[in-house]
Amino acid sequence: MTKFVYDFAEGNKEQKDLLGGKGANLAEMTNLGLPVPPGFVISTDACRAYMADGDLPDGLPAEIEEHLTALEEERGKRLGQADDPLLVAVRSGAATSMPGMMETVLNVGLTDESVHGLAAAAGDERFAWDSYRRLLQMFGATVLGMEPAVFADALDAVKSDRGVELDTDLSAEDLQELVVTYQRLTEEHTGRGFPQDPREQLDLAIRAVFESWNTDRAKLYRRQERIPDDLGTAVNVVAMVFGNRGPGSGTGVAFTRDPASGNQGVYGDYLENAQGEDVVAGIRNTLSLADLERLDKASYDALMEIMATLEQHYQDMCDIEFTIEDRKLWMLQTRVGKRTPKAAFRVASHMLAEGVIDADEALQRVNGDQLAQLMFPRFDLDSDAEPVATGMGASPGAAVGKAVFDSATAVEWAARGEDVILVRRETNPDDLKGMVAAQGVLTSRGGKTSHAAVVARGMGRTCVCGAETLDVDTEAGRFTVRDGPTVEQGDVISIDGTTGEIFTGEVAVADSEIVKYFEGSLEEGERSDLVDAVDAAMHHADSRRRLRVRANADTAEDAARARRFGAEGIGLCRTEHMFLGDRRQLVEDLIVAGDATEQEAALQALLPLQRQDFTEILEAMDGLPVTIRMIDPPLHEFLPDLTDLSIKLARQKDAGDVEERDRVLLEHVRRLHEQNPMLGLRGVRLGILIPGLFEMQARAILEAAADRKAAGGDPHPEIMIPLVASVRELDVVRRRIQGVAEQVAEERGPVDYELGTMIELPRAAVLADRIAKSAEFFSFGTNDLTQMTWGFSRDDVETSFFSTYLDVGIFDVSPFESLDTQGVGALIRLGVEKGRAARPDLHVGVCGEHGGDPRSIHFFHDVGLDYVSCSPFRVPVARLEAARAAATAKSGA
Amino acid sequence: MTKFVYDFAEGNKEQKDLLGGKGANLAEMTNLGLPVPPGFVISTDACRAYMADGDLPDGLPAEIEEHLTALEEERGKRLGQADDPLLVAVRSGAATSMPGMMETVLNVGLTDESVHGLAAAAGDERFAWDSYRRLLQMFGATVLGMEPAVFADALDAVKSDRGVELDTDLSAEDLQELVVTYQRLTEEHTGRGFPQDPREQLDLAIRAVFESWNTDRAKLYRRQERIPDDLGTAVNVVAMVFGNRGPGSGTGVAFTRDPASGNQGVYGDYLENAQGEDVVAGIRNTLSLADLERLDKASYDALMEIMATLEQHYQDMCDIEFTIEDRKLWMLQTRVGKRTPKAAFRVASHMLAEGVIDADEALQRVNGDQLAQLMFPRFDLDSDAEPVATGMGASPGAAVGKAVFDSATAVEWAARGEDVILVRRETNPDDLKGMVAAQGVLTSRGGKTSHAAVVARGMGRTCVCGAETLDVDTEAGRFTVRDGPTVEQGDVISIDGTTGEIFTGEVAVADSEIVKYFEGSLEEGERSDLVDAVDAAMHHADSRRRLRVRANADTAEDAARARRFGAEGIGLCRTEHMFLGDRRQLVEDLIVAGDATEQEAALQALLPLQRQDFTEILEAMDGLPVTIRMIDPPLHEFLPDLTDLSIKLARQKDAGDVEERDRVLLEHVRRLHEQNPMLGLRGVRLGILIPGLFEMQARAILEAAADRKAAGGDPHPEIMIPLVASVRELDVVRRRIQGVAEQVAEERGPVDYELGTMIELPRAAVLADRIAKSAEFFSFGTNDLTQMTWGFSRDDVETSFFSTYLDVGIFDVSPFESLDTQGVGALIRLGVEKGRAARPDLHVGVCGEHGGDPRSIHFFHDVGLDYVSCSPFRVPVARLEAARAAATAKSGA
Repeated sequence: MTKFVYDFAEGNKEQKDLLGGKGANLAEMTNLGLPVPPGFVISTDACRAYMADGDLPDGLPAEIEEHLTALEEERGKRLGQADDPLLVAVRSGAATSMPGMMETVLNVGLTDESVHGLAAAAGDERFAWDSYRRLLQMFGATVLGMEPAVFADALDAVKSDRGVELDTDLSAEDLQELVVTYQRLTEEHTGRGFPQDPREQLDLAIRAVFESWNTDRAKLYRRQERIPDDLGTAVNVVAMVFGNRGPGSGTGVAFTRDPASGNQGVYGDYLENAQGEDVVAGIRNTLSLADLERLDKASYDALMEIMATLEQHYQDMCDIEFTIEDRKLWMLQTRVGKRTPKAAFRVASHMLAEGVIDADEALQRVNGDQLAQLMFPRFDLDSDAEPVATGMGASPGAAVGKAVFDSATAVEWAARGEDVILVRRETNPDDLKGMVAAQGVLTSRGGKTSHAAVVARGMGRTCVCGAETLDVDTEAGRFTVRDGPTVEQGDVISIDGTTGEIFTGEVAVADSEIVKYFEGSLEEGERSDLVDAVDAAMHHADSRRRLRVRANADTAEDAARARRFGAEGIGLCRTEHMFLGDRRQLVEDLIVAGDATEQEAALQALLPLQRQDFTEILEAMDGLPVTIRMIDPPLHEFLPDLTDLSIKLARQKDAGDVEERDRVLLEHVRRLHEQNPMLGLRGVRLGILIPGLFEMQARAILEAAADRKAAGGDPHPEIMIPLVASVRELDVVRRRIQGVAEQVAEERGPVDYELGTMIELPRAAVLADRIAKSAEFFSFGTNDLTQMTWGFSRDDVETSFFSTYLDVGIFDVSPFESLDTQGVGALIRLGVEKGRAARPDLHVGVCGEHGGDPRSIHFFHDVGLDYVSCSPFRVPVARLEAARAAATAKSGA
Repeated sequence: MTKFVYDFAEGNKEQKDLLGGKGANLAEMTNLGLPVPPGFVISTDACRAYMADGDLPDGLPAEIEEHLTALEEERGKRLGQADDPLLVAVRSGAATSMPGMMETVLNVGLTDESVHGLAAAAGDERFAWDSYRRLLQMFGATVLGMEPAVFADALDAVKSDRGVELDTDLSAEDLQELVVTYQRLTEEHTGRGFPQDPREQLDLAIRAVFESWNTDRAKLYRRQERIPDDLGTAVNVVAMVFGNRGPGSGTGVAFTRDPASGNQGVYGDYLENAQGEDVVAGIRNTLSLADLERLDKASYDALMEIMATLEQHYQDMCDIEFTIEDRKLWMLQTRVGKRTPKAAFRVASHMLAEGVIDADEALQRVNGDQLAQLMFPRFDLDSDAEPVATGMGASPGAAVGKAVFDSATAVEWAARGEDVILVRRETNPDDLKGMVAAQGVLTSRGGKTSHAAVVARGMGRTCVCGAETLDVDTEAGRFTVRDGPTVEQGDVISIDGTTGEIFTGEVAVADSEIVKYFEGSLEEGERSDLVDAVDAAMHHADSRRRLRVRANADTAEDAARARRFGAEGIGLCRTEHMFLGDRRQLVEDLIVAGDATEQEAALQALLPLQRQDFTEILEAMDGLPVTIRMIDPPLHEFLPDLTDLSIKLARQKDAGDVEERDRVLLEHVRRLHEQNPMLGLRGVRLGILIPGLFEMQARAILEAAADRKAAGGDPHPEIMIPLVASVRELDVVRRRIQGVAEQVAEERGPVDYELGTMIELPRAAVLADRIAKSAEFFSFGTNDLTQMTWGFSRDDVETSFFSTYLDVGIFDVSPFESLDTQGVGALIRLGVEKGRAARPDLHVGVCGEHGGDPRSIHFFHDVGLDYVSCSPFRVPVARLEAARAAATAKSGA
């Protein structure tokens, strides 16, 4: 039979899945000999069994009884014993911390009878009644589902009646009276009295903790934090120690280093004569640890020694909760402390310097998301701007602009060159154009999976959502901050998509010093400790990673920047962007060409322009591989919109004055119009259908490479064919390009090049062995592959149903943001295996947007890709995550 | 080392891949002891090596030498020997017959010297010179690449000079003079004389046969007939026998039964004093076999005996070529004879009755395509209409209508209720609407892979293409048949998409007697021998097949018809069709509903209508499973077109008179407008996003089933969820439907139903094991699965680039017509395996259009599906092919 209950002495810190984080760490501290109140843990197995059956599993009550008896024996008193009761705390503790989400009941075991015993034993009437009213309060709210305000109002009434400010000013009699009131309120609200059987109290509290796993807010929190729903929580039953036994008692929290800056030195808060919930509730002002040293030197010294022990033992910054009962220190919790990105890099760097951890471990202490946060522009920290409200930081960045309250205004104002912030209660697909036009998006409702959040992250737009203190009146074009200012349409506001802070007026934006560091533009002496920490991490990362990192770049300028950011080549150079701007006319000529001669003329006009583009890019990436993709999108993208042009023509017809060019253009727009352009005439299909198009592009690439070589350069062009589904398509194109290469070799001398293909259709992945016979490299196009594998296009569905899909739990995260490793990943794995089986020296990379996403990079490492390619700004993130993946894989192996 | 050359005595009829069809059958006849002239075969291996290297492979010349020497020894004379030359025929012969595509050279070995020896040995000057001029003629055209007309003109000149009509009227001297002329022409056109070395003649002829594999017309033929390009041809080198040695000689072709009707009794043509090419060329009128009996009883009797032997040996109708040299019969070729669909069924049935073959073998003698051809309406065979021209039958059926010459007219006339035939030189995507509107399509250019052919087949429209004798003038709106009538726009024409025949005026269309048989509407006494044959085949098929056959049917009427055609349930009932017509307004109300109440009201209005639909369908399929798919297409399909409505609104605005309903409608059309509706908000996504929609449909189904049950019926509804990519989607919908089912059970009593999903997205196939945990059945939607796997939509690309893809050999056949077993098939296989692994009793079918395609059905059998579902008309085809697949699988195992 499954064992459900563990004594603290039976566990250790590695058993978080079974004992929860709190239980595992209490066990660890117990075994370290630190002063932990005795107790036991009911495992997450029990919780899962409870969730499955709706009742405590067989055997659990007996195990609880057994451990409780042992605890009673150790403490020499029984739970709720009339003359000297054992009291226990019942605390939830899941594997992953869910702060504020789950439940705790303290002082379990007090009854109308044993409260007198406690008073007698402690010699303190006031303490006993205070403890009892706390139990009634927590039990009522947590176990019996009463509104907390019921108790808070009664407490306020007594304080107001007595004319006192603080709870601690209430006398024993006041508190005794409050206990009577609380019991009456409990009876009124629940139809039953507060249970006077201590075991019943305990059992109900344990069930309540199990139940708290599935409250709506806990579920919502897990969805946002990507915590699986089926883990369940453990329950810790711990002998009570009391911070509320008078001035020699108290409770506090502390960090072994500063979690904001990463500075060395302990850091914490202490509250005299209080229990834990008083600290969190912020009822009274807390003291510093220095104050504790003054008040109770012995406890302070013990605390310092324990914190040093813990940091050394955990080899990381720790976060602890402690209680002092009558000048005796007790540890109630510890865990590895959460920290800001800045602190993460600095703590890792310091601990490496202190010799506590090695360089691989230091890498595991930071991550790409933190590095990315350090690279976003931030509001100037020296500014004295104070936020007027705080929402959820849903998509990072710092945005400043005039507040606008509807999409049309956003578009209109942006078109005339103004920066705007779109403010809405919540957004829907109609707001899309406004979101595109705005610098940032601010909503008063919805969480991290709301439409605004999902779409803004998708388009890289700064977003703060769910700022609930904002009253947004879109009709009137204004919002009012609760107890704060009113902002009218046109007023400038500033929003921080990382912290969720909202400011009125313009807040200065500071460039990231980390970006300056990567750019090489840091002035002498500007180099901070943080920059040193990042520098050290990047150096080790580059030596550690197996994955190469390339950039997606379409211009020489982007290529040069990417190279400064550490890119080892270009993984995707999109040629269609070179067909826009002034050249659009030439493309239009190509499309409306009446015959082969006109078509050829249009291609000839494009050739020197393309060659020049490639010459510059190859120069910027001299010595490194440059993967150039043949033109990919449907041709109609270079022509006017069908509906717009149709309306224009209809009006011309009504006026009896049709323009010939428009008429011809409309004919071609209609001809090229597709119901589903994503599934239409694009990629290699264009190359096969339009004679000369790919040949012109190949010629431009090869001539550029030949010219670079003649000029002493070292060009490494790789020609990439998009949207290949069948090796026969690749063969047709390959033969044509080989023909061009032979001509160019005769004209300008031979050039080495590789020819490969994107793997972005499910068929290409399934038949990768055949395709590899004609391809020297593969590059997974994960954006299209995701679209085809799921059967939805990013443009169409991300805005219409992704927030619903996130809400009902079909996605943890948009598959366009982080690779769907189960589905799309299975095809990638298949493609890599089949491709390498057919051609062992095949090199394989990825050039979809997932190439810069941390979670996805770990998958790409695991599956054995040679490189990832991402936007220039994500190159450092990818370098770091590639190394973390390599280090994890090794240690995990 | 590979052996390249085989004596006839070394081979047999099973070796077609190695020896070609002709060589393998000559070997078989040799070993049967039939009179086959001695010779040998150069294998297809040699041809493939030649194609790879461009030269004869090492070892081949020596092997040829060796076999030639053996042949010379057997015949007692050497190739081209001056006084009595051995002459040989060099004939191509691929594994699959390619009539008229490949090359033959007869009389190899004749030279200026040996022609005299032949004359002397045969005692016939005229015969010798006739043989020589034939060699020069064939060698010039085939080996040296000269225009055949060069020789034909010279021959005509001599005949005209001598004042004779027939070749046989020319004297030895005339022919000798012609030889001189032919040699001069050869020198003039090729710059070299006709080779006088007999071995050089032989080697060049062998190379020419190899080369003939890759002529453009051979490649085109193979593409149309789906013959792979890399098989190559064998070369037969056979001692010559002469049908041109005077009146006691001749040549002929014969069938052991009538290939048109299937009637018992031999059937053939004979030509006196001629070589094989004269029969094919149709230069003189042929005689019947009865004439041969009269002319040469002994040879006739021998032929009859041999034909009986062959039919008994091959256990099938045979097609032979023979030559009589001086009253001695020689067999030059045999093979299993091609036949019409009617003959196929009748021959199979007769041979079964004769005890020659068993019922399984009889099944292999017919196929679904033939059955389908028998089911198409055909022009009345009793009509005396004569075709005015014949093109290629590109998409079967019989269509009658007024000729129109542009798409707009076709649409306009069709809209006013007229039947039209769209006539074009060739079609392009602009003609699509016209093709949809027309009864049939006729083009003067392009083959079976032309745009017109591909698109017409895709939409099941009758099509005749490449009718080259038509001069189509679209500007003037008429076509003229070469040496025939002129048809003006509006004149009625009739086209036969099976035979390619074109008639002026209306030809009566006869219903298929086979359809009447399936319908059960054949009158007593109307039952022909063909019907009996089909009936026997279908009976055996039904007992033999493992695959069940269901129909795709959306109405009770279709369901009833499908049942008459043998359907064992409905595999796909599309509910969206039930939302059209009068109900469109309700759907519009649902979409533009302002709030939940309005939405609910619209759903409530739809409920009784849907329930009635389902009640009728369940009644028509009482006792059989009925799979009903929840609404699948994007909602905007129920609304007006965006561009049309935008133009309407723009005009209303210009006129200052905007209609409110149009304004609101446009808002919703814009909201629902998608760039790629195929990849948008459809299928299960609709069900998750629009509360109550699937629930309403489920309620309608379950209430209908409960009502049927209450009325004593036996309903088997299966609820199918479309476009599922993740098991979590299915779980969300399943929970909602279960809720509805519980309610309905309370209200009307419990109903058994199954809940399953379509597998039509690559992700669903890859993760079929997870999905199977929540699905009681799978139905592969091969149309969508093909779209997503290849990344193209049928609507968009079939019209724009499929003909190019077929032309350059990327497809053998459109993957929407016949399943892409390599790519899409791999996903289906994976889906079946994973699904069954997770749920062994999962039942699995297919409901895409491939369910009625013969090739695809064999794949579905092999992969272990439980059933296929197809349109009612294809049900008999599927029944037959399912049985053929089962029989093949067994015999092949």
